[in-house]
Amino acid sequence: MLRVNAERLQDRLHQLSTVGATAGCGVTRLALTDEDRAGRDLLASWMHEARLTVRVDDLGNIIGRRAGTDESLPVLLGSHIDTVRNGGRYDGALGVLGALEVVETLNDAAITTSRPLEIVSWTNEEGVRFEPAMMSSGAVFGRFETAYVYGRADSDGLRFEDELRRIGYLGEPSNRPDAAAAYLELHIEQGPVLENAGKPVGIVDGIVGITWSEVTWTGQADHAGPSPMPLRRDALGAAARLVTAVEEIGTREGHPAVATVGRIVVEPNVINTIPGRVVMSVDFRSLDNEGLDRMMLQLEDKVRGIGYRTGVDGTVVRFWTSEPTVFAKPVIDAIAAAIDELELPTHRLWSGAGHDAKYVADRAPSGMIFVRSQNGLSHCETEYSAPEDIEAGANVLLHATLTVAGAR
Amino acid sequence: MLRVNAERLQDRLHQLSTVGATAGCGVTRLALTDEDRAGRDLLASWMHEARLTVRVDDLGNIIGRRAGTDESLPVLLGSHIDTVRNGGRYDGALGVLGALEVVETLNDAAITTSRPLEIVSWTNEEGVRFEPAMMSSGAVFGRFETAYVYGRADSDGLRFEDELRRIGYLGEPSNRPDAAAAYLELHIEQGPVLENAGKPVGIVDGIVGITWSEVTWTGQADHAGPSPMPLRRDALGAAARLVTAVEEIGTREGHPAVATVGRIVVEPNVINTIPGRVVMSVDFRSLDNEGLDRMMLQLEDKVRGIGYRTGVDGTVVRFWTSEPTVFAKPVIDAIAAAIDELELPTHRLWSGAGHDAKYVADRAPSGMIFVRSQNGLSHCETEYSAPEDIEAGANVLLHATLTVAGAR
Repeated sequence: MLRVNAERLQDRLHQLSTVGATAGCGVTRLALTDEDRAGRDLLASWMHEARLTVRVDDLGNIIGRRAGTDESLPVLLGSHIDTVRNGGRYDGALGVLGALEVVETLNDAAITTSRPLEIVSWTNEEGVRFEPAMMSSGAVFGRFETAYVYGRADSDGLRFEDELRRIGYLGEPSNRPDAAAAYLELHIEQGPVLENAGKPVGIVDGIVGITWSEVTWTGQADHAGPSPMPLRRDALGAAARLVTAVEEIGTREGHPAVATVGRIVVEPNVINTIPGRVVMSVDFRSLDNEGLDRMMLQLEDKVRGIGYRTGVDGTVVRFWTSEPTVFAKPVIDAIAAAIDELELPTHRLWSGAGHDAKYVADRAPSGMIFVRSQNGLSHCETEYSAPEDIEAGANVLLHATLTVAGAR
Repeated sequence: MLRVNAERLQDRLHQLSTVGATAGCGVTRLALTDEDRAGRDLLASWMHEARLTVRVDDLGNIIGRRAGTDESLPVLLGSHIDTVRNGGRYDGALGVLGALEVVETLNDAAITTSRPLEIVSWTNEEGVRFEPAMMSSGAVFGRFETAYVYGRADSDGLRFEDELRRIGYLGEPSNRPDAAAAYLELHIEQGPVLENAGKPVGIVDGIVGITWSEVTWTGQADHAGPSPMPLRRDALGAAARLVTAVEEIGTREGHPAVATVGRIVVEPNVINTIPGRVVMSVDFRSLDNEGLDRMMLQLEDKVRGIGYRTGVDGTVVRFWTSEPTVFAKPVIDAIAAAIDELELPTHRLWSGAGHDAKYVADRAPSGMIFVRSQNGLSHCETEYSAPEDIEAGANVLLHATLTVAGAR
């Protein structure tokens, strides 16, 4: 039975991880930085070595195409190579290099699939440097206007379009991935479910809905010394109460719903001044839209109550929502069949994190394969998946691809 | 009766406020920046115009000396011209330019005091760019070693000594202010006490004790989506609970004690990652050392309790303490006599903020005059004192100086 070359895959994961490597064995390769360019150059060179026809679209997505025996709709395999700040070596990279390993394995075995295969590396999945996340898969499949994406700016005011041009990856609109027969994305789980279940790979039923809000607290900056406690309007005092309230909202909603305050910006943020302004993020996730709306109602209620009690003005802006996605049954079935064939233990689960597969699913039957994450950790330097789990995941991707692309 | 030229003083306060001016009508003139250098150059030019003998010591303190009729110990008049980020136009500047106005008034009236007068502009009072605050008055009067001060670095790693040399204000140790007959510092109140009392100027009895601590929370950074609420070790969740606890500690201790969390740094501080590490400041102030110790004990207790309940490790480092200071009776009496003579309404109060006068008081009889602050605000762009209050404060400084320096 056909198997991937696990050593080659590990070697490439390692090589890519040296681009933007951090002292703590992680990776910082934010979208459209010099590190991202170096990572793209390396990926493109590997695509050429694998005899793929490489093209770049107007969003910087890199597509490597392998012809099929007939020119029907292609099967897309992909993920992303940008990372968060001090992120890990597998998040995103595994899906792109796993797809490349599938192609290399087919090359080695001289197998041509009926359908063409296209490996896609999506630009700016993480949404750390340029918000929102999954920006370019979203743009390709109609969620965002190109002009909107081009105008997004990082915290230094640098625009997406300018940075894309600067790193030399501004391609043609006609190069975008188009309609596809199926989309498969291999990814680390980024959570503890597979580890708790003791399973190396998971079949993903869908992606939870996510909504992001920004809460701004406006109090009164003042010298820390001479302002009596009862007269203060401390923006951080209000924000702290909301951090606790958000935690309670998530806990009350119950698994797999979660609620997180990940970012907080305090002004002026000096030791001897009462904070006058705080901007904080709120991230809610739920299996259904009703859950998201229920949590938002509670958030707005808490902001009103805390504002009333502290004398600090709070405003909530819900600026981004991603509805829950249910993956396509034929693709899920192909993944399940591959796992069966490979005689691997598995588990079905929902993804708590967003992935490019979510937007691709708007237009093409899509599915995801999860690989177990040690301690459930990701978006950190200690993100780790065991080589045998990665091998298992890549083999599942290989055989699911053979099914949906049709192998001779 | 002799009076300052209020218009000249206002004009100079305005001119100095244009150096580092912010869009919001405030000032950002952090210690040893290019803005600080420009402010120093302007001040030195005014000192020369006022026929003072100008010298700079090895801490960058600028001293302008006016000879007396006898060469006894001088009377020092001073404050600072550095500001916080987005600070105001009066904090510090008023004490230096008020002292300059006293000299100009004496020049205009051809009065020579018995004792020499020295105007001192102390380097880095605010402690925003280089911690701790009141760094150079502390170094001159034996609180800090010169090597310690020189080695302090800002958040970009730039050292105090290097930056002092860069801006051209690294002078000689022999130029430091020495023993003095008295020290007088005119300053805005930075609190609401005089405004609530309806008085333009205040006599300061002393300065509350201050202690600064840094609390570090170490949890586990993780992707916001797939981590179930009960399994999280969210460093910001722990920090938020401590912000509320610190507020309660200050409120329970009671006026004029206060407790403030002014700074909080979250890592990685991105919207979709559970914060793994938070560093936060805690500022406690009290009339006596016992009050500070009592608040510290409660802080340590709270950090232990929150750490236990959240699974996040908390450590407390108390890194700086400034004991309460009681000002010298003869200087307080001279200020009170000047206020009487000028027939001004007044109020006695404690300073909730630290000032250079605190360290000078270690070696010389010292006192402070406060000017009413509109809405009690300072360390912000809307810091404001009415021209008539500033004039009243400068006249009090003038007459208290005549008393302690001896006028013919």
